[in-house]
Amino acid sequence: MKDGLDALFNAASIVVVGASPRAETPGGTTASQLVKRNFSGDVYLVNPKYREIEGRKCYASVEDLPGPADLAVIAVAARHVLPVLRQCAAGGIKGAIVYTAGFGETGEREQARAQEEMQEIARSSGMRIMGPNCVGLVNNARNLWATFAQPPLFEDGLQPGSLGIISQSGFFGIAIYQLAAYNGLGFRYFASVGNQADLSFTDFLAYMVEDPEISVICAYLEGLKASEDLLPLARRALSLKKPLAFIKVGATEAGSRAAQSHTGALAGSEENYAALFRQTAITRAEDFEQLVAYLHISLMERPPRGRRVGIVSVSGGGAVMLADKCGRSGLAVPDLHPDTLARLDGMLPAFATSGNPLDLTGQALEEPDLFGRALEAMLEDPGIDVLLVSYHIHVLLCWMALAKIRECYPKTDKTIIVIGTPLGEEDDVRALIKETRRIGVPVLQDMNYAIWALSSYADWWDKAKSYQDQALPGKGPALPPAEREGLTEYESAALLRPYGLEFPRGTLAKTAGEAKEALSRMGGAAVFKVQSPQILHKTEAGGVKAGITTPEEGEAAFAEITARARRYREGAEIHGVLVQEMLEQGQEVIVGMKRDEALGPVILFGLGGVFVEVLQDVALRVAPLTPPDAREMVEEIRGHKLLEGFRGSPPLDVEALIELLLQVSRFSMENPDVLELDLNPVFVYPRGRGLKVADALVIRRKN
Amino acid sequence: MKDGLDALFNAASIVVVGASPRAETPGGTTASQLVKRNFSGDVYLVNPKYREIEGRKCYASVEDLPGPADLAVIAVAARHVLPVLRQCAAGGIKGAIVYTAGFGETGEREQARAQEEMQEIARSSGMRIMGPNCVGLVNNARNLWATFAQPPLFEDGLQPGSLGIISQSGFFGIAIYQLAAYNGLGFRYFASVGNQADLSFTDFLAYMVEDPEISVICAYLEGLKASEDLLPLARRALSLKKPLAFIKVGATEAGSRAAQSHTGALAGSEENYAALFRQTAITRAEDFEQLVAYLHISLMERPPRGRRVGIVSVSGGGAVMLADKCGRSGLAVPDLHPDTLARLDGMLPAFATSGNPLDLTGQALEEPDLFGRALEAMLEDPGIDVLLVSYHIHVLLCWMALAKIRECYPKTDKTIIVIGTPLGEEDDVRALIKETRRIGVPVLQDMNYAIWALSSYADWWDKAKSYQDQALPGKGPALPPAEREGLTEYESAALLRPYGLEFPRGTLAKTAGEAKEALSRMGGAAVFKVQSPQILHKTEAGGVKAGITTPEEGEAAFAEITARARRYREGAEIHGVLVQEMLEQGQEVIVGMKRDEALGPVILFGLGGVFVEVLQDVALRVAPLTPPDAREMVEEIRGHKLLEGFRGSPPLDVEALIELLLQVSRFSMENPDVLELDLNPVFVYPRGRGLKVADALVIRRKN
Repeated sequence: MKDGLDALFNAASIVVVGASPRAETPGGTTASQLVKRNFSGDVYLVNPKYREIEGRKCYASVEDLPGPADLAVIAVAARHVLPVLRQCAAGGIKGAIVYTAGFGETGEREQARAQEEMQEIARSSGMRIMGPNCVGLVNNARNLWATFAQPPLFEDGLQPGSLGIISQSGFFGIAIYQLAAYNGLGFRYFASVGNQADLSFTDFLAYMVEDPEISVICAYLEGLKASEDLLPLARRALSLKKPLAFIKVGATEAGSRAAQSHTGALAGSEENYAALFRQTAITRAEDFEQLVAYLHISLMERPPRGRRVGIVSVSGGGAVMLADKCGRSGLAVPDLHPDTLARLDGMLPAFATSGNPLDLTGQALEEPDLFGRALEAMLEDPGIDVLLVSYHIHVLLCWMALAKIRECYPKTDKTIIVIGTPLGEEDDVRALIKETRRIGVPVLQDMNYAIWALSSYADWWDKAKSYQDQALPGKGPALPPAEREGLTEYESAALLRPYGLEFPRGTLAKTAGEAKEALSRMGGAAVFKVQSPQILHKTEAGGVKAGITTPEEGEAAFAEITARARRYREGAEIHGVLVQEMLEQGQEVIVGMKRDEALGPVILFGLGGVFVEVLQDVALRVAPLTPPDAREMVEEIRGHKLLEGFRGSPPLDVEALIELLLQVSRFSMENPDVLELDLNPVFVYPRGRGLKVADALVIRRKN
Repeated sequence: MKDGLDALFNAASIVVVGASPRAETPGGTTASQLVKRNFSGDVYLVNPKYREIEGRKCYASVEDLPGPADLAVIAVAARHVLPVLRQCAAGGIKGAIVYTAGFGETGEREQARAQEEMQEIARSSGMRIMGPNCVGLVNNARNLWATFAQPPLFEDGLQPGSLGIISQSGFFGIAIYQLAAYNGLGFRYFASVGNQADLSFTDFLAYMVEDPEISVICAYLEGLKASEDLLPLARRALSLKKPLAFIKVGATEAGSRAAQSHTGALAGSEENYAALFRQTAITRAEDFEQLVAYLHISLMERPPRGRRVGIVSVSGGGAVMLADKCGRSGLAVPDLHPDTLARLDGMLPAFATSGNPLDLTGQALEEPDLFGRALEAMLEDPGIDVLLVSYHIHVLLCWMALAKIRECYPKTDKTIIVIGTPLGEEDDVRALIKETRRIGVPVLQDMNYAIWALSSYADWWDKAKSYQDQALPGKGPALPPAEREGLTEYESAALLRPYGLEFPRGTLAKTAGEAKEALSRMGGAAVFKVQSPQILHKTEAGGVKAGITTPEEGEAAFAEITARARRYREGAEIHGVLVQEMLEQGQEVIVGMKRDEALGPVILFGLGGVFVEVLQDVALRVAPLTPPDAREMVEEIRGHKLLEGFRGSPPLDVEALIELLLQVSRFSMENPDVLELDLNPVFVYPRGRGLKVADALVIRRKN
C-alpha cells in the first residue's frame, strides 16, 4: 500500500492527460499549478488538440510519452476515462488521479459499471487509482499540486508542516487547506478521495498514519465502505500518538439525507461511529471552527499534557466566564498551591485577589512587571499543566503581555495558550497573533472553540498516553450462509461455550421421559424452556416454566409448554425442552452484538430492566475489544453505581463481566456469519462469584 | 418603583458632584459625555475646587444649586459620599448614582456599615440610590449618558432601539453595549447596578419589563439577594412576550469562586437558578457570542414563529453540516411538501437534488434567477417557518443573493436569516452585512451561535405563545422560629392534610393498648411506625414494622419498636406509634422541597429507587408552581415513560401527581418557616385511582 500511494504523493514525474491552455479547465489549472509552483519532478502534458501549451510540448496520447511517468492526472470527458486508464496501465504508470465526474455518484447503472471497471483495471494492473469525481491531491512539501482546486489564498501560511488532510468532499477538503494556510498550520498532504473506485478513505489514512513526517491527521468523513477497516488504523494512530480529528456529518436524519445525495459512500449507524470514535479517541469536530482550534492545540510544539488549567486575565469579569467554561468542559481549574498564593499575595495590589482564575484587573497593564511575575508564579505552580492568558484587551497592551510571555516561555516546560481577539487596528492585531504563534504559543480567538479543543485534546491524551498495542482476535473465515437465521438457546449456548461463556447446567430433552430423567439427574429445582427455531422469544409463547422439582411436575411441564408452543406458532419445529438448573438471582445485565455493515460487530452492554428499556442506558464499542475498551463500557453507563455495591450490597464481579465482553468480542470476530447476538439476561454475582448467561440468542446470515 | 427609576432614566436635570476638567476622572468623563452628547435636560456641575469647568459654572456644593435636580451623579472620594448623599436627599433630589468604590465589596466591616447607611438614607428620604461601586446608567434615547464608562466605539450603531441592558459587572455591561452598538442592535437603557445598596438588579429589571419601549432585556447576573423576587418578574415578561437573555456566571466551582471575589451578591445554588430559567424560558447565554446571536434573532422585525427550518446553500457540503447542527439543536429540518419538490425539480439542473437542505451547488451563482425562484419555492412551502440562507461564498456573489432576498422578503411573512461570513474585501463584506440587516434580515456570522440562538428563541416562543397570567399562592406571614426542627410523620401529615395531600388512614397510639384498639378499628393489616422528633429516619432505627394483624402482634410490635427506638437514640422523646393502614404498592415517586436562600422554595420531583439515588433523575422548579410547571416536571425526568404505562402496565395517575406538586407548592409558599419537606415514598396508582403519601418529613427553621 505504501508503495502504491508513494506513486501519488511522491511521484517523480507526472503526466496531465487533458492538459489545456485554458486556465479555467481542470487540466489547465493542474498543468499551470505544477509548473508555477516549481514541482520538483518532470511534468508531461497530453492533449491531442494541442502541439504545445505555454511553450511546453504537448503529446497526443499517453502512448507517445518519451518515458514512463509515475502519476497520471486524468482530466478528460467521462467517455474517454476508461481508454485513457487502460493506456496508462499499459504504459507502466503507477498511479492515476481521475477528476472526471459522472460515474458511481450518478446512481445510474451504466456509470456505476464504468466505475467498477476502473477497480478492475487497478486490480489487474497494479496501478492505483484515486477518484473518480475528486479534486486531486497535494504534497505541499514537494510543491506537488495535482489538483484543480482553487489555489491557496494565503500563500504566506503555506510552509509545509506535519498536518495531513483527507476529505470525502472536494468542497470541504479545499476549505480545510485554505483554513490551514490562513492559520499558519503547515499542512503537508491533502487528498480528496472522490468516489473511491480503488483507493479509499482508509488507504489514505493508513499512508498518513505510517508516514513519520505526519503528526496530526484531520478528515472530512461521510461514511465508510464495508471493505474499509478504520478501527485498527485508529488504534495504530493511538499507539503512535498521532491525533486524528474528523468532521463526520450525517449525525441527524436531515444531515444524513443530504450527505447521501452528496456522495456515494455507505453510512453506518451514527451511534456506531460515535462508539468507534470514543473508543479510539478520534476527536470529532462539528465544524471548521472546532477543527481549526483543535489543530492549533495538537500541532503546537509543546502541547498540553494534562487538564489542570491556570487562568490569567486582565479583563475584569472575563476570568469568571473562562473558569466556568473550563469547568463545564471537564477541565480542572484547581486551587493554587499555598506557596503560589503567598507569592501572588506579595505582589498584587490590595484590591486584586490571589487565586485561580487570577484576575489581575486593569492595574496589571500599567505594571508590566507585575503581569510577568504573576505569569511566572502561575507557571511554577506544580498543580497547573496549562496556562491560559487572555488577549481580550487593546492590541498595544497585548504587545506588552507578549513581551512578558516571551520571557517566561523558555523558562518553563508547561503549555501556554492565548485566548481572545485583541481590540485595535486589524493589521496590528494580525501581526501580534503571528508573532505570538511564532514563539510557540497558539492564539485561539474564540473562547468556546478554544476550551472545547483543549478539553478534547486532554481526552485524547488521556487515552493515548497509556495506549499499548496488543494482540486482538482477528476475523474468522467467511462461512457459507446458514440455512436458518435464528438458533435456539441450546444451539446458541453450544456455539458460545467454547469461548468461555458460563451457562447454567442443562440438558435438551426430546421427550417427557428424557425430561424427567434430566430433572432427576439435575437434583433440585429446574426451569423448562421450549427449544424451537421458530420461537426465539420463548416467554412470549408461554414456552418457559420455572420451579419444577418432581417427576410428575416435569412430565406435566413438558407436555404443557410444548403444546403451548405449537399453539403459539403453528407448524413450529420443536427440538425439545431445555431442562436447566434454576439460577440464583443476580444483578441483571444485557450483552449483545449487532453487525454494522460498514464498521463490523458492535458490542452492546447495559443493565437489565428499566435501564435499557426506559433509559436507553447502554454502552457501545466496535469489536475487537481491548480489555480497557471492555472496562470503559462497564464504567460508562449511567447506572454503573449498581455494580459497585450500592446501598450496602456487595460489589459485583465486574472482572467477570469484562471477561464476558471480551469473549463476545472474540466470538463475533471469529464468526462473521453471526449477524446478531443477544445474551439477556446475564446474572452477575458478587465479586469472585462470576456470572451466568441465563438466556442466549444467535442470529446468523441466512441463505 | 417606576417613579423612583424614572428619576434616573428620565431625569430632566442632572447634577454631577465631583465634576472635573480632567477628562480621565469619572466626574470629568460624565460631565463631558452629558454635554457633548447633547443631553436634552439641564446639567449642573459641583466641585468646590473649581469656579467654572470648560466655560460652565461650577458650584461649590449641592446646596448652592439654583434649583432642585432630578438626579445626582456622585463621583467623590469614599469619605465624602455619605455627606453628599445627605445633602442631595435634603435638597429634594429624587435619584442618585454613586460611582465610588470602597464599600460593601471590600468585605470590611466599617465600609459595609457605610453602605447600610446609604440604604437608610434612601429609605428615610425616598431618594433612590444606584450603586455604590457602579459605572452608572444610560438612556440612549435621551442622550443621557450618566456613566464614566468608555464612550461607544461604534457610534454609527448607536441609534436607540428597544433593547435594555442590566449588569452586575461594569466590565461586562460595557462590553455588552459596545457589542450592541457594533452589531447595530439599537439599545435604549443600560444600567450597571454595582453593590445594590438600595436599587437592586430586579428593580431595574422590573422597570424595563414594564416599559413599553423595551422589547428585549439582556443581563449579566452573578447572583440575587434574598429580598429580590425574580420569578414573578420573569413570568410578567413571559406574559408580555418580552424575551429575557441572561449571562449567569458561577455555574462551576471555580467560576463561582471568582464571581464571589468580584461582587458582593449572594449566589443561590446553580441547579436552582437553572430550574428557574428553564421554568420561565429565560435564555441563558454562556458568553457574548451567544448573547449577540440571540439578540439578533429576538430583536428582528419578523422573528421566527416556529422551529421548522428550510436551508438553502450554494456551498456544496455546507448544507449537510447546517442540517446536522439544526437537528442536534432541537430544530426540525422537515421534508418539503410534494408541490415544493415538484417546483424545484422543474427548475434545478440535473445534478442538483431537490430537498431540504437544498444544495444548489455553484451553478446557482451563475443563474441568479434560479436562486431567486428556489428561495421563493422554499418560502412558500407550508411546512417551513424559517429560511436559512448561507453566505459562505464570495461577497460579490452574496450581493447577487441579497438582491434576490430583497425581492422575496416583502412577498412572504416568514423569517429569513442569513448565516456565514462572505469571503472578500473587508469593507465590502461590512457593507453587505449592513445592507442585509437594513432590509430586516439578520446576518449571523457564526453558524454555531446562530443555530443555538434560533433554537433557544424557539424554546422561548413555545413557552411565551401560550403563557397566561394566573393567580398563584402568595407568601404566608413570617412565623416565629419553631422550638424544634424536625416534625414526626404524624405531625407532618397534620400540617399537610389541609392542603389536600392524601395520607393513609392512621392513629397515633401512645400505649400498647391504644395500638391494639387502633388496629382493631382499622380492620386488616397495619404498619406500625415509631414517632419521635429525634428519630426522623424511622426505618434505620428499626422503628417500623409492617403486616401486623392480630392484637397480639400489635402489642408485641408496639413494645419492640419503641424499645428499638430507645436503644437507637438514647433519651429520644417517643410520642407513640403511628398505626397506619397498609398501602397497596404503587409506582414509587419522591416529592420534596428545599428553600433556596436567594430564590425561595424549590420543589423536587423524581421516581423512587435507582432513578433518584443512582441516576439523579430529578426535576426542579421554583415555587409558586403553575399547573404547566408541574406538568413539565413530571414530563421532564428521563424515566417518565414508567408513568405512561410501560410494557403493558396501565398508565398512572399523572393528574393526581400534578395536583400533589401544586399542593406542595402552596404549602411551601404559605409556610415560610418550613425549610425542607420530604414526601418519600409517594405511591402513585393507575389513572383515576390517585396516590398516597406513604411517609412525610417537615423541617422547620429552628430557634
